[in-house]
Amino acid sequence: VRLRRSLESVHKVVVVGAGFGGLKAANVLGSSGVEVTLVDRHNYKTFQPLLYQIATAGLDPGDVAHTIRRIVREHPSVEVVQGDVESVDLTGCAAVLADGRSLPYDSAILATGATTHYFGVPGAREHAFPLYTLTDAMRLRAHVLSCFERAEADPGLVATGLLRFVLVGGGATGVETAGALAELFDMVMAGDFRRIDTSQAEVVVVEALESLLSAFSPPSRRHALETLHDRGVAVRLGETVSSIAPDHVILRSGDRIETATTIWTAGVQAASLPGRLDVDRTPAGRIVVNPDLSLPGHPEMFVVGDVAAAGGSDGRPLPQLAQPAIQGGRHAARQILRRTRGEPTRPFRYRNFGNMATIGRRAAVADLPFGIRLRGTIAWLAWLFLHLLYLIGFRRRLQVLAAWAWNYVAWDWGPRLVTPVEREDD
Amino acid sequence: VRLRRSLESVHKVVVVGAGFGGLKAANVLGSSGVEVTLVDRHNYKTFQPLLYQIATAGLDPGDVAHTIRRIVREHPSVEVVQGDVESVDLTGCAAVLADGRSLPYDSAILATGATTHYFGVPGAREHAFPLYTLTDAMRLRAHVLSCFERAEADPGLVATGLLRFVLVGGGATGVETAGALAELFDMVMAGDFRRIDTSQAEVVVVEALESLLSAFSPPSRRHALETLHDRGVAVRLGETVSSIAPDHVILRSGDRIETATTIWTAGVQAASLPGRLDVDRTPAGRIVVNPDLSLPGHPEMFVVGDVAAAGGSDGRPLPQLAQPAIQGGRHAARQILRRTRGEPTRPFRYRNFGNMATIGRRAAVADLPFGIRLRGTIAWLAWLFLHLLYLIGFRRRLQVLAAWAWNYVAWDWGPRLVTPVEREDD
Repeated sequence: VRLRRSLESVHKVVVVGAGFGGLKAANVLGSSGVEVTLVDRHNYKTFQPLLYQIATAGLDPGDVAHTIRRIVREHPSVEVVQGDVESVDLTGCAAVLADGRSLPYDSAILATGATTHYFGVPGAREHAFPLYTLTDAMRLRAHVLSCFERAEADPGLVATGLLRFVLVGGGATGVETAGALAELFDMVMAGDFRRIDTSQAEVVVVEALESLLSAFSPPSRRHALETLHDRGVAVRLGETVSSIAPDHVILRSGDRIETATTIWTAGVQAASLPGRLDVDRTPAGRIVVNPDLSLPGHPEMFVVGDVAAAGGSDGRPLPQLAQPAIQGGRHAARQILRRTRGEPTRPFRYRNFGNMATIGRRAAVADLPFGIRLRGTIAWLAWLFLHLLYLIGFRRRLQVLAAWAWNYVAWDWGPRLVTPVEREDD
Repeated sequence: VRLRRSLESVHKVVVVGAGFGGLKAANVLGSSGVEVTLVDRHNYKTFQPLLYQIATAGLDPGDVAHTIRRIVREHPSVEVVQGDVESVDLTGCAAVLADGRSLPYDSAILATGATTHYFGVPGAREHAFPLYTLTDAMRLRAHVLSCFERAEADPGLVATGLLRFVLVGGGATGVETAGALAELFDMVMAGDFRRIDTSQAEVVVVEALESLLSAFSPPSRRHALETLHDRGVAVRLGETVSSIAPDHVILRSGDRIETATTIWTAGVQAASLPGRLDVDRTPAGRIVVNPDLSLPGHPEMFVVGDVAAAGGSDGRPLPQLAQPAIQGGRHAARQILRRTRGEPTRPFRYRNFGNMATIGRRAAVADLPFGIRLRGTIAWLAWLFLHLLYLIGFRRRLQVLAAWAWNYVAWDWGPRLVTPVEREDD
């Protein structure tokens, strides 16, 4: 088979994972007519930067998820396979699916993303709510809304922390979720209940470092902290969580916070598949890669996105965000094209376009290139514009724009639905 | 307590169920400042006439579900309780919740709706997909899309009926679902797959009577049948299902149809709560009511909607649709107001505004009053207009209108997502 394929000079690429990195790679390769098999465990691609709006009932799941097959449909050479990649035979050059199917490749791109990393905190895996996947967000939404229903049924439970929501981690996801929860409680749900006052609900952010948004400039960090304070969010800096139970968390300082909802946004680690491969990994499980993003000893295998420990200009691994994944996916695809033409690969150079985080209505911070720092309404508008731009498809953009306009004007966020969602295994 | 309440002349009404009937009643009573407790097991109200569009990926769950608290928020005298009503103490005048809470009432409205009725067909409860609740629709959507993913992974499975979809019941829900599935397969998903041809998928409708849409006029029935035929849907009239297995159904004629998906739209029965009450019921479990919709022997208790066997002008129970429920809810609320003023109640007179069913793009039938019968594009436009009108809230109307416009123009239905949905008990 291998002989026949090479005689026909068909170069077969397997891309594992259809997130930001994998999809970008599949699109680049598909545009050049390369035969690609794109594997993902889901039939949809999630726009993760807006997941927190699912969790806080600002958007519908359909607004941030898009069918993978539809995205790559215009490339006839790209085949989509829904399935779990169980292992990769690095020597035999084949990805093996959980159902036994084997996908041989000439080149491959590993873009499996990450899973929530609990750092071994007791009770975290069992009781904390992660926020990395679409089903995570839907489960969290149902839980948050249920807490209010339970409190309305028995207002005495408020004293047990039923309306206190603890976010572990003060990065962008933690800050954005905290701000959105505060607005949801104070403005959107106000007036919905008769026995409880939704504005009495508390949001607490626990951050291990001495500031929020550590990837941002000091002025942006301070602005985020002040804005959250103004909106009634309590922030505990230099503090970590040492254990989590269904009805409370214990902090390292010994403080105990009564809460029925601990949301874990403190970190992600490489997904479980890379853990089964015989490759070098960082302590967080990210795969060590060559400067061109290929796997050491395997020039035909590239690793991109959250799962790769690709270095930035400062030598530290790039942050686990959309931009490094997109740029990495594009780079890996181009190096595969170069190799098929017999050209040497080039090192990956990450272009940092900056960081953005929204804290709520007309409040955001943005650190852009050339030292441009925005905050307040202008940063918020920039955030809205860029997130609309990166959504896939005209329909989705229109839909989200309309939802945001309505949410802004009417304080009537739509999908406040408690529907049962099964927890998915990592 | 009863004495004190009557001295203050506060009349307390409990409404069980926040569907079309219960919500209309709560809104009418709330407008008059009557104290109402509205109980529902969910925190949202489902717009059931559009459920089939959730199942066929035309709309998002948030498009057809609306938070109950938001709907009644403008009525300060209406309190919403999320909970399961376990029983009603008809003598003591109190509704008892599953968690033990007791809700005493001076008047009550029972509007609990229905659950799917399988007529004792072996295997139906275990293997058929019902389509009466929001989670039913979300489960069905995930299953239908998964069948195509499994077929793409192993095209040999198509021969086992993996892409054959059997609808049991040729009423409005069956016809609308069949038409939408045919369009989804032939037009929307076409081009998404490489190894299978989605237009080879088959839709079969099995109807016990000699025509589809038995509630409609003969010309409308014929038109629906012809239109489904034109769109490739197979219709088996005068046929019933005698057993259902995961991979096939057996018909009464002895025919066996290989299928992985049997969708049950053949009937609903009164929900389980009324079955626990000591009241007269029809064979389908609907509660026998007086002409004023009150329960015989209990003038303070009214029963409306799918659960009530209210008679139409022909003496037969009214169909289990939105209109009888809305009109019944309004009537019951008005009779409660009359009773508080010491006036006698009036009999319920159902005004039949006609029947409508859509079969797909620019295809529908509508039997309106005064013998007006529409079909084709004009009926379809009338259907669209009326369904938009009955959706709750400006935002939802806009959102659904935009989604429909896009679906029509681009054949790119949005939410084709396979997310895990837990099955809810009846």
